[in-house]
Amino acid sequence: MSRERPAFAEISPSEFFYRNRELAGFTNPSRALYSAIRELVENSLDAAESARIKPVVEVSLQPEGDGLDPRPYVLAVRDNGPGVDPVHLPNAFGKVFFGSKFTLKQARGMFGMGGTMAILYGQITTNRPVTIESSVDGVTLHGYRMLIDIEHNRPLILERWSREAGGWHGTYVRLTLEGDYTRAQQKVLEYFRQSAMATPYAYLSFTDPLGRRVEHLPAVDTMPPPPRETLPHPHGLDVEALRRIIRAAKQRTLHELLYKNLHRVGPKIAMKFLLHSGFDPNRDPSTLTNEEITALARALHEYDGFLPPDASCLSPLGEELLVAGVRKELRCEFVTAVSRPPAAYSGYPFIVEVAVAYGGELQNGVRLYRLANRIPLLYDESSDVAWKVITEEINWRRYRLGDNPPISIITHICSTRIPYKTVGKEYVADQPDIERELRNAVREALRRLSHYLSKKSSLEMAQRRSNIYQRYLPLIARFSMELAGRGRPPDYRKLVAGQGVEMRR
Amino acid sequence: MSRERPAFAEISPSEFFYRNRELAGFTNPSRALYSAIRELVENSLDAAESARIKPVVEVSLQPEGDGLDPRPYVLAVRDNGPGVDPVHLPNAFGKVFFGSKFTLKQARGMFGMGGTMAILYGQITTNRPVTIESSVDGVTLHGYRMLIDIEHNRPLILERWSREAGGWHGTYVRLTLEGDYTRAQQKVLEYFRQSAMATPYAYLSFTDPLGRRVEHLPAVDTMPPPPRETLPHPHGLDVEALRRIIRAAKQRTLHELLYKNLHRVGPKIAMKFLLHSGFDPNRDPSTLTNEEITALARALHEYDGFLPPDASCLSPLGEELLVAGVRKELRCEFVTAVSRPPAAYSGYPFIVEVAVAYGGELQNGVRLYRLANRIPLLYDESSDVAWKVITEEINWRRYRLGDNPPISIITHICSTRIPYKTVGKEYVADQPDIERELRNAVREALRRLSHYLSKKSSLEMAQRRSNIYQRYLPLIARFSMELAGRGRPPDYRKLVAGQGVEMRR
Repeated sequence: MSRERPAFAEISPSEFFYRNRELAGFTNPSRALYSAIRELVENSLDAAESARIKPVVEVSLQPEGDGLDPRPYVLAVRDNGPGVDPVHLPNAFGKVFFGSKFTLKQARGMFGMGGTMAILYGQITTNRPVTIESSVDGVTLHGYRMLIDIEHNRPLILERWSREAGGWHGTYVRLTLEGDYTRAQQKVLEYFRQSAMATPYAYLSFTDPLGRRVEHLPAVDTMPPPPRETLPHPHGLDVEALRRIIRAAKQRTLHELLYKNLHRVGPKIAMKFLLHSGFDPNRDPSTLTNEEITALARALHEYDGFLPPDASCLSPLGEELLVAGVRKELRCEFVTAVSRPPAAYSGYPFIVEVAVAYGGELQNGVRLYRLANRIPLLYDESSDVAWKVITEEINWRRYRLGDNPPISIITHICSTRIPYKTVGKEYVADQPDIERELRNAVREALRRLSHYLSKKSSLEMAQRRSNIYQRYLPLIARFSMELAGRGRPPDYRKLVAGQGVEMRR
Repeated sequence: MSRERPAFAEISPSEFFYRNRELAGFTNPSRALYSAIRELVENSLDAAESARIKPVVEVSLQPEGDGLDPRPYVLAVRDNGPGVDPVHLPNAFGKVFFGSKFTLKQARGMFGMGGTMAILYGQITTNRPVTIESSVDGVTLHGYRMLIDIEHNRPLILERWSREAGGWHGTYVRLTLEGDYTRAQQKVLEYFRQSAMATPYAYLSFTDPLGRRVEHLPAVDTMPPPPRETLPHPHGLDVEALRRIIRAAKQRTLHELLYKNLHRVGPKIAMKFLLHSGFDPNRDPSTLTNEEITALARALHEYDGFLPPDASCLSPLGEELLVAGVRKELRCEFVTAVSRPPAAYSGYPFIVEVAVAYGGELQNGVRLYRLANRIPLLYDESSDVAWKVITEEINWRRYRLGDNPPISIITHICSTRIPYKTVGKEYVADQPDIERELRNAVREALRRLSHYLSKKSSLEMAQRRSNIYQRYLPLIARFSMELAGRGRPPDYRKLVAGQGVEMRR
């Protein structure tokens, strides 16, 4: 028998994402422009915050030549972060699956490939090298001009240099990519506005292709505490992860292994768990068979005596910063924010924060702003868990907000692991625990708004009543005075004051 | 200055998808079970069809132990395909980004990683090795028991064997994974049903955890012509692809380079294009600078004198097979299928086929079945372009189908490149050209249904009329006969026949 059999080949990670770039949000010249800006800005914000520096990120986008869209654009992003060590710099931007995001820690980036994808997209559409400069000490700056060798997934350095940094530390990336700003403009500007809302302590500027600069100044002086890296929680542990812990461990007993390597597992709980599930606490972990490791992982999953993951490793915005950010960017009449207590899904801690804004410069209708680990999510709204909550799970009538009220709802989910459904980070899956927290937070915020509005409306009623008294009481007083033949009217001002409303002068 | 700087690390492709398995559809034990079945079945169908063998695919799913879901299941898939060469077998199932799907050719698989993901998921949830057996010649069978070394992205062979194949060629995969069949059942059964609809020439069987076997027998004896690999079309070519063509090319002139390496570009068109865009046809391609390659790619993109990609490389089902598949699985009263002429988006050819089924065993209401390269898509319906078309772009009233008619719409898109938005292949992006073809096909199919229904209803009217004639004419004839005093009634049968309806006997 002789049949045509398929030809097999191996491709590199760069090659995979080169072929399937729409998976990472690089679908067309408009979307790709948006994605490139966003990936670089998020890298900059993550870097600055991880070093506790208040971020200053400057972005500029200049067209090349004067053709029509889509056309080549030069995108440059400069930050004041801690910079990248020159040893890592070429790989960090020229190698897919090389990065600093592969830890259990809250960060905007999660897949560790956004920056490289932006550079890769620029290269395949314009064939231009990228320029990267970075300084870690403010003294020396290192620069590279490079391409990505897609077939081998490695940077191809064309030129390198170093010079005085003049006190600047941070990273600067300049690349050329084919883009369509005419179509992308609205999303890009919205992205900056919402990013500013989510990072009210940052300075963000964007110089558009016509040279106009949009600046978002910091509204507050404090930063939320930075997220910390954390150990894995037993409920989030799979067999592979457990096997790695065992292999890397120096501990001689199972008991010690558990309480030294797992989140929220101390010596006492570890002992209780081991006795409950029938493992010998003194067993040498390195002697466990494959079957025993599997049984141990399963037992860790199912044991309900562990404390839930704690959220001290997370960095929510906090009600105060969220209110400041929303008020600054939306210029509303009223805003309230609700931070839910920490919760967890499959061993990953998360915190949900929700703000509700009302009136002021808001337009009529309910608008949703979605944030996840301080990233604005602007695409595929109707697939997001927050959309599901506000359209399906809120009984809007009970809050008596009137017809078509001018409301914005801002949701923020932060977690060591946001359950995105695409590498492009467009929307969050409807994980039931996250859904529940969102629902509770939105309801609480709407209750507060409802309370504010009913107070405001009773104030207005009182005001109207007072206006009527104010108009007629003087007349009645005068008539009464005349009827009674007395020379002085009764003191009606007290009556009005009794309504709890001050008289107008 | 000394600041905390991020730690950099490289991870392997296996590691990336291990950490982000929900990107490939392995979200939870229910979804993962569905995804694993589907990925293995699709590999089997692709393999058999590529060798022009009518597929026979047998799937069985057996629980391990008698616990509650989620629990370990043993999943086994056996096909009659051409088999995998023993040299490639371990990599094909134990290495992410190693596969046979990296060509410009219509196939169910696109990302070349589904089978490996299923094995990887099984391993991290149950720590069990996978068993793979394959025979390419019907004489010898090669078998492997192996794990995936996730950190290094390579197969870890535990055992290998070979024995007599006894005439069987094909591939057999058996793996253990944590699953939740209780929740997955409905989708799994639906997946088989719709797969059978899309491959009416295949034999599919599924033995469920209770030992019940669901069989889908072939309804037709013919297979559509197999898809062929094709050259890239100039409109789908990016700079990177062009650069590779130039590097690999043996041609000495730009003219020859173009007409030998591009789809639908012959010597004449190549010459016209080169003269139009100002390139020297006799130029040696290897002397082109980076800037010139970029300019050439751009010119190729923008030139509108190329023929559109032709679809002879595609393998649509055809109206006949589609009708047979739908009739077999949906048991409807009426079905019609529309195959649109080939079209293209960004240089990729595609064909849209739509069937509309009505009545019979269908329930009231409009139901959508989505197929892409013969794969049923069962998740995220509301994000799909076909959903958008039938909910937003069809004026249902004009087809006079009555209230809540029992209708199913089956859409099939085939292309060398389906614009999926996730690695899990859940839904197709709303690419405008695809959207337009879908709209036209659905409208045409609905027009035909509408025509059928109006013919049916006038037939019914005629039938009713004829029934009345049939009842009263004999009486009238008899009365007339008696009134006229004649011995024989007039021949009223002709009158009834004049209504175009046969008399009942």
